[in-house]
Amino acid sequence: MHRQRFYTLTASCPDQVGIIARVSGFIAGHGGWILESSYHSDAITGRYFMRMEIRADSLPFLLAEFRERFETAVAQPLSMQWRINDSSIKKRVVVLVSKQEHCLYDLLARWQAKELEIEIPCVISNHESFRGFVEWHGITFHHVPVTPDNKPAAFAEMRRIFEEAHGDCMVLARYMQILPPDFCADYPGRIINIHHSFLPSFVGAKPYHQAYDRGVKLIGATCHYVTADLDQGPIIEQDVIRIDHSDAIEDMVRYGKDIEKTVLARGLRYHLEDRVLTHGNKTIVFR
Amino acid sequence: MHRQRFYTLTASCPDQVGIIARVSGFIAGHGGWILESSYHSDAITGRYFMRMEIRADSLPFLLAEFRERFETAVAQPLSMQWRINDSSIKKRVVVLVSKQEHCLYDLLARWQAKELEIEIPCVISNHESFRGFVEWHGITFHHVPVTPDNKPAAFAEMRRIFEEAHGDCMVLARYMQILPPDFCADYPGRIINIHHSFLPSFVGAKPYHQAYDRGVKLIGATCHYVTADLDQGPIIEQDVIRIDHSDAIEDMVRYGKDIEKTVLARGLRYHLEDRVLTHGNKTIVFR
Amino acid sequence: MHRQRFYTLTASCPDQVGIIARVSGFIAGHGGWILESSYHSDAITGRYFMRMEIRADSLPFLLAEFRERFETAVAQPLSMQWRINDSSIKKRVVVLVSKQEHCLYDLLARWQAKELEIEIPCVISNHESFRGFVEWHGITFHHVPVTPDNKPAAFAEMRRIFEEAHGDCMVLARYMQILPPDFCADYPGRIINIHHSFLPSFVGAKPYHQAYDRGVKLIGATCHYVTADLDQGPIIEQDVIRIDHSDAIEDMVRYGKDIEKTVLARGLRYHLEDRVLTHGNKTIVFR
Amino acid sequence: MHRQRFYTLTASCPDQVGIIARVSGFIAGHGGWILESSYHSDAITGRYFMRMEIRADSLPFLLAEFRERFETAVAQPLSMQWRINDSSIKKRVVVLVSKQEHCLYDLLARWQAKELEIEIPCVISNHESFRGFVEWHGITFHHVPVTPDNKPAAFAEMRRIFEEAHGDCMVLARYMQILPPDFCADYPGRIINIHHSFLPSFVGAKPYHQAYDRGVKLIGATCHYVTADLDQGPIIEQDVIRIDHSDAIEDMVRYGKDIEKTVLARGLRYHLEDRVLTHGNKTIVFR
Repeated sequence: MHRQRFYTLTASCPDQVGIIARVSGFIAGHGGWILESSYHSDAITGRYFMRMEIRADSLPFLLAEFRERFETAVAQPLSMQWRINDSSIKKRVVVLVSKQEHCLYDLLARWQAKELEIEIPCVISNHESFRGFVEWHGITFHHVPVTPDNKPAAFAEMRRIFEEAHGDCMVLARYMQILPPDFCADYPGRIINIHHSFLPSFVGAKPYHQAYDRGVKLIGATCHYVTADLDQGPIIEQDVIRIDHSDAIEDMVRYGKDIEKTVLARGLRYHLEDRVLTHGNKTIVFR
Repeated sequence: MHRQRFYTLTASCPDQVGIIARVSGFIAGHGGWILESSYHSDAITGRYFMRMEIRADSLPFLLAEFRERFETAVAQPLSMQWRINDSSIKKRVVVLVSKQEHCLYDLLARWQAKELEIEIPCVISNHESFRGFVEWHGITFHHVPVTPDNKPAAFAEMRRIFEEAHGDCMVLARYMQILPPDFCADYPGRIINIHHSFLPSFVGAKPYHQAYDRGVKLIGATCHYVTADLDQGPIIEQDVIRIDHSDAIEDMVRYGKDIEKTVLARGLRYHLEDRVLTHGNKTIVFR
Repeated sequence: MHRQRFYTLTASCPDQVGIIARVSGFIAGHGGWILESSYHSDAITGRYFMRMEIRADSLPFLLAEFRERFETAVAQPLSMQWRINDSSIKKRVVVLVSKQEHCLYDLLARWQAKELEIEIPCVISNHESFRGFVEWHGITFHHVPVTPDNKPAAFAEMRRIFEEAHGDCMVLARYMQILPPDFCADYPGRIINIHHSFLPSFVGAKPYHQAYDRGVKLIGATCHYVTADLDQGPIIEQDVIRIDHSDAIEDMVRYGKDIEKTVLARGLRYHLEDRVLTHGNKTIVFR
Repeated sequence: MHRQRFYTLTASCPDQVGIIARVSGFIAGHGGWILESSYHSDAITGRYFMRMEIRADSLPFLLAEFRERFETAVAQPLSMQWRINDSSIKKRVVVLVSKQEHCLYDLLARWQAKELEIEIPCVISNHESFRGFVEWHGITFHHVPVTPDNKPAAFAEMRRIFEEAHGDCMVLARYMQILPPDFCADYPGRIINIHHSFLPSFVGAKPYHQAYDRGVKLIGATCHYVTADLDQGPIIEQDVIRIDHSDAIEDMVRYGKDIEKTVLARGLRYHLEDRVLTHGNKTIVFR
């Protein structure tokens, strides 16, 4: 993590000789100082992935000009998909929550401590429970109830709120409603969920009950991008914690919370720092 | 963790034949239902340790009578040190904090979610920073500044607050002042600290800097009882997290926070549930 | 782990008041010295489980008499299922292996170092690869080829070898043939397998390929009792290891081996020390 | 890990604009295909580190010519320290061992399975214990007894054996003699030790006893380069395992072995694959 302003360039293209040379040559040719760089070549699909952090003050032009020049000189010849972000522009994260507080408290603590350098334009919940807590932090709180009858209207309302807030991404911080497929499809790679199991084990509802019934010795949590297929999206981060026969389901729920908030925080950070590139239904995470 | 009311009996005595039989015989003789029990014999010192949870409604008398009968029938013959607590009486935890919020947020989230079944009569801090946050939760906040000149008075004031609050234990949630030796000595096994290193490595100030300089590949945190010897008290819980050469000190601080709050929460829970027995400078933790 | 000779008593029965008192009273009544004891009550099924280690020289009679007296005085009144083993009688472990050496080397190293206090009467393999290595250790090696055509005969032969060797249990140390259902059914709780995934994820063949395709961030291994349902038996032990996008399947296989041998060794040790009690399709593991 | 032949280039130099561009430009200019590349800039010392794997068949010349051209075109202008190795030339690892077999068995199993692509020209031990086991594998065994009286002669003999074996590095696989300072000094970055504690805790003799006395809740192992300062050399890899109050020292020793062999195997692999660059008393490990 760097304190000076920098740009983060992420890209992927078909693998070939000379990609690094071309990209780093372009940057060095303009005096650009690379703070950090990572590369990955997928041997099976032959696709190449990269991420670079470049000191903003080392370049003689602004991002708009960088974009134009890089597109012509590098990206087009390499058939590259790419983007570049400015560390001085904070991403806008809309948090969705239901009735469990652990992920919400954890995220707001990290935001408060400036450990997560983000804007939180608003929190959306299907319950009123956390209005006070959220508003005390100076953050707008939207109560959008979801019932079997009002689903289309409710999700249309959430979409409106997200758009009006100019949200970059949505975080489902133990939000307990299933998002409609078209909603998911409209925001690929922009909705981040924390699922309370070590996927692909225990998809769907009540994963701790499923884990209890199977008698596993570790339980886990999975941070993933949401797609139209429930709990099947690209996995960003996972972790596990040991349990044993003496742990009741409620103990597992309690242990699980500690893993959930840590895994969500790590996954979200990777996403916000442009460390995650998706490749089909998998992720490259440049830590 | 049991939902019905129960008593927690913890005890230690010189090891000999028949301790379990005597204790469990006494309890069964009165119809007592043991929910959970753990035993440990220290082979080197020959001391025996135990912990039991007994359903409150299975006994025909109240705690006062239990205490009297058990003392005569079991404890005295076995030269036992023991205590028994009632799960329906919440422990009173006074939290001390300085300028870092991660442990404070984490503790209040667990308290709010009733994951920690405690009373928090007040929070004490040497800074004003968290007054609003604490008071929003309906908890009293005491600002007790500590300067090189006012130390004796400041700690006398904290002692007064703790006593007036009828505190059972004090939690140093990244409280950055060193407690005077007599203060520590007056509350043995009642002050819990979280130290931001994997003790005994990196005692004292700036442990992450020390860890950075030594080039370790994992960093850790240690929850321990405070004694007059700085960072030398009995260890309750520890954990570590992996780092690598690319992590600057500020990254280590950030990773470390996640370990600190988890380790503190686990250690505190063990303490509150009477799972921790001290033995010299070590602990038995009946998980 | 105790150096002096001891008996290990394991038992389960319907839960009720006074079980510990009755069992420990019986033992103390004969001067028996309990070295270690563990208890577990399953709150949902109301079944009680226990394990005790008793110093052999503290009892005034031998195991045969213990068995008779305990059955009458304790087990029958409590409707208890129980067994007791003598630490001085080494268990006889028959190892089955195919072409991968990591688990075999690991088990023989532990046996050689007396870390595992067992007899290995023989190793059975469907390949000749490890004859020299096994025989160099002074252990009998049986080559029992398995082909699509000879399965019944081959498994009959293995059964004969196991019986003649007076085997207590069989360890499938990456043995790559599926055991027939009747074979499994005849040795419940006596065949231990190491599966190279974190079950229930990735059942069946090529779990590392499945894990690669799903893009998980941790891979695992599972030690379990073999039942007629492939990879569905009671889980004894599990663990995981972190991977990332840069790991090819062959890297995952290599990392996985480290977990497989550790998990198998831990699970086997728990089994050999009578720390594992099965309860339906789950295990209680008294560590 | 790549199956085709490749060269591994590692280098360090003062940080400046354009290093990647210069290095990758040189390689691409000759048609070189970079399979993997990693970079690190030390923000405090301003030193830059890199590692690249280049497909051997993508370059139009052999290593000798590469060395000459790269030195002139890249290394000298950048004041670079560098080396390049050929994956088809197996490194020669001399193993030193005393009386504990776990690391030795583990290393030979990995060598046997071609998981470690090395030559083991010989094993040296101060005891005869493992002669048979080592020789059965077709590896030369040297017994070099070390007594208080013969130390200089014994280490001179080991040096002679290592030189005659054209050893690239020495692995102290729980070798329990302290190497003389001049011996260490003559092979910087070429002697790899596994220490049975989580350094810097518990330096020197009997670390498990030290850990037991301190009451830590995790024990560890550390793989490091040997320097003249006992247990103070650059750390390559570390890991820990959880223990509790019920574990006697002999249990800790047993758990510790599992960590020791895993940590040694990982550290050694990083070294053999040229993933470790030393920087003062620390390491950069490009995993």
